[in-house]
Amino acid sequence: MVSVHVSPSDPDLERAVLSAGARLGAAETADALVCVHDDLEWLRETVVCNPNLRWVQLGAAGIDMWLEAGVMHPHITWTAAKGIHAEAIAEHVMALVYLAAKELHCAARRSSWVDLEVARVAGSTIGVVGAGLTGREVIRLARCNGMRTISLSRSGRDVGADLSLGVEGLSQLLAASDVVVLLCPLTEDTRGLIGDSEFVSMRQTAWLINVGRGPVIDTAALIRALDARQIAGALLDVTDPEPLPEGHELWSRSNVLVTPHVASTPAMGKSALVALVVENTRRFVAGNSLLGTVDLVAGY
Amino acid sequence: MVSVHVSPSDPDLERAVLSAGARLGAAETADALVCVHDDLEWLRETVVCNPNLRWVQLGAAGIDMWLEAGVMHPHITWTAAKGIHAEAIAEHVMALVYLAAKELHCAARRSSWVDLEVARVAGSTIGVVGAGLTGREVIRLARCNGMRTISLSRSGRDVGADLSLGVEGLSQLLAASDVVVLLCPLTEDTRGLIGDSEFVSMRQTAWLINVGRGPVIDTAALIRALDARQIAGALLDVTDPEPLPEGHELWSRSNVLVTPHVASTPAMGKSALVALVVENTRRFVAGNSLLGTVDLVAGY
Repeated sequence: MVSVHVSPSDPDLERAVLSAGARLGAAETADALVCVHDDLEWLRETVVCNPNLRWVQLGAAGIDMWLEAGVMHPHITWTAAKGIHAEAIAEHVMALVYLAAKELHCAARRSSWVDLEVARVAGSTIGVVGAGLTGREVIRLARCNGMRTISLSRSGRDVGADLSLGVEGLSQLLAASDVVVLLCPLTEDTRGLIGDSEFVSMRQTAWLINVGRGPVIDTAALIRALDARQIAGALLDVTDPEPLPEGHELWSRSNVLVTPHVASTPAMGKSALVALVVENTRRFVAGNSLLGTVDLVAGY
Repeated sequence: MVSVHVSPSDPDLERAVLSAGARLGAAETADALVCVHDDLEWLRETVVCNPNLRWVQLGAAGIDMWLEAGVMHPHITWTAAKGIHAEAIAEHVMALVYLAAKELHCAARRSSWVDLEVARVAGSTIGVVGAGLTGREVIRLARCNGMRTISLSRSGRDVGADLSLGVEGLSQLLAASDVVVLLCPLTEDTRGLIGDSEFVSMRQTAWLINVGRGPVIDTAALIRALDARQIAGALLDVTDPEPLPEGHELWSRSNVLVTPHVASTPAMGKSALVALVVENTRRFVAGNSLLGTVDLVAGY
């Protein structure tokens, strides 16, 4: 019988493993590992010392940290918890889209009755960079709220947007969007993806939202773009550096809002993670392909 | 041929009148008046001096100001521009719902990386007090965003909510809602509708949104409820007094956000107003009943 170790111990995830037809095992001998913490050294040692280990399910959707640390040995199948935060992140994106359109960041910072320049959300265009499970949900919700939608991914695949572009379409997306949302994983290709020339491509009235990974935006270029009024502003749930240090100039800009990487939380993703562990354990027991498999070359 | 006077002169509204089969006339002699300003003295004089006047189309949706001023003589048919701001106001409501759930008002007021208590919007319950055209649109949009919906109106009519209540259901709505939205007109019945006992009925985690008329909330009772932590907070696009004076204590509360009566603007409602004037002028010419007729006894 296939054995799975859950780290740290978690009744919900252990029940998930059992319900899927596997048994619980020790970290040193289990066939598979569900790893929901980010203790890289523990994971490195477990991967090296457990000769049976064939599959690791990570609890995170973005796995750049593990990849950079060099713990993701290619003789093991690695799965990320892709999509478990999709609904919560899509809500956070809509919250930021509405905030910008209604200038609620200005209202929150004022203490007198001064007019705001409110705009409609319906009819405006959102460009979503990254067309995975979260991108699909952002597009679904944006369409519900009356927005025109553009998606962009490596493959240019259709995730329900009005227009689906491949990576060569980035400048087209930037030029056509009232809101640009970054959802992409952090890879060699996406680090610094939004830099000086991309800000030039954006509309001066456009907002940039980052709910993916901080270093996808070149922070220095963002500050230059804000200084030059090349964009309307930025709404950042992830930053570079992160956490954004006190006194960093992004904190004090009237057209910047920073949220502390809370678009989704472990608690918000928990039930979807449990369901994913059930499904992937079933598949592993049956010898079938797993959901959320990490492409170690592509880096996500 | 029926004649209509448009005040102030406005090419779009004058074209609307002409396209509907009426001609333009002088204020002193026209059969009907489209009045898009709030010069009460001018209107009072025109109503008294024009013996032909049978219909006045006001440019506003809420007509409490005209009613209180005593200019709405009952021998004339009065129509309000009900519903022309429905879509914009519904967006403002969603913006405020998302802001509260994601604590963006806190984020906007901070300059350091401090955790936020974010909550999901989908699955939460919105209670909408006032089930006119705007209430219908708020409910449609809230449902699109995954919310459970309760509406309340004098008649308890169904405008698409999961649960439709009459006025006797107010305490039920208050007890069941994570967000309470006030959309009702200001009348003798609704002045001070939300007072001490209503705050007691609300959930301690619930937000109160007012996009209707300021005096529907008893401001002193609101402040008492905030002090007693009887509700999570208040998001006010309308206030009493309005404009909210500088130094008023609502400006400085961390769980209050005030927007300066901008949920919709004349510009946002313009195209719907033009369409309404076309339709009502056609109906007036044909002798049919008009849209948005004011019930002078009910007060809206």
